[in-house]
Amino acid sequence: MTVTLEDIKAAAKTIEGQVSRTPAIRSTRLSEDLGFDLVLKLENLHTTGSFKERGAVNKLSSLSEAERKTGVIAMSAGNHAQGVAYHAMRMGIPATIVMPDFAPITKVERTRSFGARVVLTGETLDASAIAAREIAAAEGLTFVHPYDDEKIVAGQGTIGLELLEDFPDLDVIVVPIGGGGIISGIALAAKAIKPDIEILGVETEFYPSMYQAIHGLNPSCGGQTLADGIAVKNPGQITRAIIKEVVSEILLVDESAIETAIATLAERQKLVAEGAGAAGLAALLAHPGRFKGKKVATVICGGNIDVRILAGVLTRGLVRDGRMVRLRIDISDRPGVLAKLADIIGRSGGNIIEVFHQRLFQDVPVRNAEIDIIIETRNADHVKEIVDSLQASGFRTRVLSSKSVESAVL
Amino acid sequence: MTVTLEDIKAAAKTIEGQVSRTPAIRSTRLSEDLGFDLVLKLENLHTTGSFKERGAVNKLSSLSEAERKTGVIAMSAGNHAQGVAYHAMRMGIPATIVMPDFAPITKVERTRSFGARVVLTGETLDASAIAAREIAAAEGLTFVHPYDDEKIVAGQGTIGLELLEDFPDLDVIVVPIGGGGIISGIALAAKAIKPDIEILGVETEFYPSMYQAIHGLNPSCGGQTLADGIAVKNPGQITRAIIKEVVSEILLVDESAIETAIATLAERQKLVAEGAGAAGLAALLAHPGRFKGKKVATVICGGNIDVRILAGVLTRGLVRDGRMVRLRIDISDRPGVLAKLADIIGRSGGNIIEVFHQRLFQDVPVRNAEIDIIIETRNADHVKEIVDSLQASGFRTRVLSSKSVESAVL
Repeated sequence: MTVTLEDIKAAAKTIEGQVSRTPAIRSTRLSEDLGFDLVLKLENLHTTGSFKERGAVNKLSSLSEAERKTGVIAMSAGNHAQGVAYHAMRMGIPATIVMPDFAPITKVERTRSFGARVVLTGETLDASAIAAREIAAAEGLTFVHPYDDEKIVAGQGTIGLELLEDFPDLDVIVVPIGGGGIISGIALAAKAIKPDIEILGVETEFYPSMYQAIHGLNPSCGGQTLADGIAVKNPGQITRAIIKEVVSEILLVDESAIETAIATLAERQKLVAEGAGAAGLAALLAHPGRFKGKKVATVICGGNIDVRILAGVLTRGLVRDGRMVRLRIDISDRPGVLAKLADIIGRSGGNIIEVFHQRLFQDVPVRNAEIDIIIETRNADHVKEIVDSLQASGFRTRVLSSKSVESAVL
Repeated sequence: MTVTLEDIKAAAKTIEGQVSRTPAIRSTRLSEDLGFDLVLKLENLHTTGSFKERGAVNKLSSLSEAERKTGVIAMSAGNHAQGVAYHAMRMGIPATIVMPDFAPITKVERTRSFGARVVLTGETLDASAIAAREIAAAEGLTFVHPYDDEKIVAGQGTIGLELLEDFPDLDVIVVPIGGGGIISGIALAAKAIKPDIEILGVETEFYPSMYQAIHGLNPSCGGQTLADGIAVKNPGQITRAIIKEVVSEILLVDESAIETAIATLAERQKLVAEGAGAAGLAALLAHPGRFKGKKVATVICGGNIDVRILAGVLTRGLVRDGRMVRLRIDISDRPGVLAKLADIIGRSGGNIIEVFHQRLFQDVPVRNAEIDIIIETRNADHVKEIVDSLQASGFRTRVLSSKSVESAVL
C-alpha cells in the first residue's frame, strides 16, 4: 500500500487543533428504525461543512516554505474548494480555485469569502481541470488534487482512527465514494487497527465509476443526481488500488433512496446532510437485512446542500409518506360548495393547507369545475378515509400527489 | 435550594446508559461569524429530539414499584409528551399523555407510536392540564410535571455537568426558558462547579412569563410563536425560586430573530433546531457585543420542528438575505417580451426559478400586463444590478419579496 497506518497517525497529529475532531454518535432513533446498531460520524459539522478539510490541511502542511509562498490551486465545484480555500487562508497560503461555469452561485460566493481567487472556467469539470493544470504550470502553483494524492488519503483516513477510538466494536463501516479518497483512508486505518472489520462503499446509480473500474466494466456515467459531491467520472488511480484491496463491496443507490435518506436525517436525526453525505444511510435503508445484528457506522460526509433543494426534499418527503396530499375534486361551480368540502375534510381530521381553483384548461363542462386541495394528513390510511368521505358525499375525488399513496388509497 | 449538585450528580448516574450523552461542539463557523467562542450542546440529537428525556427518566426511575405498575400521566403537546411516553414504554410503565385538541397531528402520532394512551382534550393547555389532573386522581396515576418537580430539574441539570466536563472554561451559558426546568438544573450544576460562571435565560417577546414573574410584572402572554416549546404562560414555582437566585438576566427575542437562528443553524451548522431550540442562538445573534471575548455555550434544546415550517423558514431565509427575490415587471402583452426579460436577467447572472403571469386582477391597461419573476441571486447588491439592467432596458421593475432587500435596492 502507498499509504500506511503510520501515515494516517501522522496526519492525525498534523491536523490536530486545526480541524475539528467531529463527534460520532449512536443514533438510537435510526437504530430502532433499522433494526441494527447505527453510529453516525458527523463530518457535516466541520467549519466548511465537509470532511475535505482533513486532507486539505494534511496536504497544505506538507508543502515547502517556497511552495506555500507561491500558493496552491485546486479545481472543485464544491466541498474540496471550500476546504482548501478556508485552510489556505488560515495558513496564509495564496489559493486559486478553478470552478466550472455552472458552479452554484452560493458555492462561488462562499469560496470567495475565504479570500481565494476564484477562476470560473470550463463547461464541464474535465475542461475546468485542464484549465487548472494550465494555470498551475504557468504560475508555478502546487496542484491540490481532491483525492488522488497520498497526503489527501492519509488526511481523510483520520476519520477511521477517530471512529474506532470512539466505537472500537464496529463490525462494518459504510462510506460514500466519489473519487475514493475518504473510503481509502478510512479503510486503511480501520483494517490496520481491526483486520476483521468490513468496509463497504456506496455510489449512485448515475455515477458508478469506481464500481465499474473495480469490476472491469466500461465506464458509463451521467445524469442529474442529488449526490453531486460523489458524481465523479474519473475515479483515482491511487484510491482504486486501495479500494480493490480493502473494500469488500460497493453498493449502488438510486436517487429516491438518497432523497429519503436526506429527509430521514433531517426529520429523525435533526441533521442536515447533502446528497453525498446521506448516501451511506441511503444504502442502509435500502438493505437493512444485510446488517442485522451488526454494529454499523456510516459517515455523514457533508452537509452543503442547496437550501432550496433541502426545502423541496423535506416537502416531498411529506407527500411520499402520505402526510401531505393533493386531491382533485369535481365540483359544480356554485356558491357553498367549498364550504361543504372544507367541512367534510375538517371533520375527517384533515388540515387544509392550500386551495386551487382552475377553470381555464379543464376537460369538464363549463358549469362544472375542478378544485385542487392540498391537505395535511396523518398517513396513507387517513388519506383513504378522507377520500372515502368525499366520495360518499358525491364528490368525485382523485389523489394527484403521490403514486404510492394513490395506490394505497384506490 | 431545593435541588443540589448532589441530586444532579445522582440523576446523572440514574440516567446513564438510558439517555444519550449528547455531544457539545465548538462551532468554528458561528464563532467566526459572531466574534466570540461559541459552544453548542446538541440536545436535539436525543432519540425523541429534545432534552426532556433526562428529567423524564430521572422522575420515572424514582417511582415506587406500585407507582410504576399503576402508571404515569403527563400533559404536553410536545417534547415532554414524547420523552415521557418513550421512556415509560422502554421501562414497562403504562403512560397516559393528555394533549390539547389543537396538538399537531405528527406529535400525536409520534406519541402514540410509543405505546402511550393519548387523550385529546381541552381547547387550551390550561384546560388540558385540568383534565390530566382529573384523570390522574380518578385512576391513581402519578402526574409527571414538565418542569415544576425536583426530579425533573435534577435530570435536566445533567446537561450542565456534561457541558462543564467537556468545556471547563466556559464563561457564560445561555439557556431558553419555558417553565424553567432546564435552566434551573443547568444553573444549579454549573454555579456549584464554577461559581463565577454566568447563566442567562432567553424567552420570546410573546411569552415572557418568567421574566414578568421575576420582575414582579403583571403576566401578559400570547401570540403565535415559532418557539412553541417555550410558550409557557405559568412558569414553575420551584424553578422561579432557583432562577431568581442564580440566573443573572433574561433576554427576550422576537420572532424574526428566532427564524434567523433556525435558518442559521440549518445552513451554517447543519443542524435542525425547533424554534425553542434556536432561541439561545437568537439571543446571541441579537446581542453579539455583550459576549465579546467570552467563551459562551448555548443549548440547542430540541429539534422537533414541523417539516413544513422548517422548509418555509429556509426559503424565507433566502429571501431575507437577498438570495432569492420576486420582481414585478410591467410588460406589454406581446410575443417575445419574456425572451427579452429572461435574456437580461440571465446575462446579469440571475437564475430564473419561477414565472407568473397575472392578467385578471391588475391595475394596468388591458394591452399591458405585469409579470412576476422569482430569481436566485447572490445578494442584495446583485438584485440591484439586475433591477438596474431591467430599468435601463425600459422595464418598470419593483422588488416585491423583502423589505430589507427593497430598501437596499431602491
